[in-house]
Amino acid sequence: MYALSWSLHNLISQTSNDTIILIYAKPPRTVYTSPDGTGYLFSPDMLASIDKCRNDLASSIIEKAKKMCREQGDNEVKVEVIIETGDPRDVICQAADKIHADVLVMGSHGYGLIKRAFLGSVSNHCAQNVKCPVLIVKKPKSSSSATGTK
Amino acid sequence: MYALSWSLHNLISQTSNDTIILIYAKPPRTVYTSPDGTGYLFSPDMLASIDKCRNDLASSIIEKAKKMCREQGDNEVKVEVIIETGDPRDVICQAADKIHADVLVMGSHGYGLIKRAFLGSVSNHCAQNVKCPVLIVKKPKSSSSATGTK
Repeated sequence: MYALSWSLHNLISQTSNDTIILIYAKPPRTVYTSPDGTGYLFSPDMLASIDKCRNDLASSIIEKAKKMCREQGDNEVKVEVIIETGDPRDVICQAADKIHADVLVMGSHGYGLIKRAFLGSVSNHCAQNVKCPVLIVKKPKSSSSATGTK
Repeated sequence: MYALSWSLHNLISQTSNDTIILIYAKPPRTVYTSPDGTGYLFSPDMLASIDKCRNDLASSIIEKAKKMCREQGDNEVKVEVIIETGDPRDVICQAADKIHADVLVMGSHGYGLIKRAFLGSVSNHCAQNVKCPVLIVKKPKSSSSATGTK
């Protein structure tokens, strides 16, 4: 959300007809087998419920992002949405290449060394693998400069 | 140079008074000792000559970059220069933080996995350590889209 806000203030030109394409990666559904391995831990009903939860979460985040675009975009900025299921690293790289994005903007968690070693860095992976320029926006410690000039 | 060209076409707003600050990192002078370790391999004269060579190289690259700013900048874009000696990773991060850059633009060599493992990735290091947003611009395989729209 911070990266989106930063982009709306600093990257989207007032005079151009830029389109923002929001990419959301839903993590793939884990198959939960029961401890004895003979069946699944969750009934189909429960799995459907989990799926609904994840879809609701995606919708809620996308809606929040769209609202930010409407409120902070200088003019009527066009917004499109891509929702895919998979590892965020793959989803983002594939989507950015497929739509021939002019620039890929990403937030960064700013994990420390240890956490990054285990989790990998999505932004790092994308910066190395995606074809277009990649802009990595970190949330500053004091988050007061979102509206700073370019 | 590609990253600079891309920025001039896509990042620098025509209406703003943006300043481009070119950062050039001169690698630190290696101390060449003679094989038997009793003295230096190069005489002071030779070292002075090597230094002159490196300074000439820096000047030449900076001049080329300035020329590009003059020719491709939409309006009279202001250009400043920082030249420091040291590991480019440290020089770039320290300079960007010191001048409170609004965005750090970097090119990327696009090294493969092996070369990156040995050399490290300057852009990767900076993206993780610098405070401001980092834009990594890779030279595309077909370098015809430098003037692409944002």
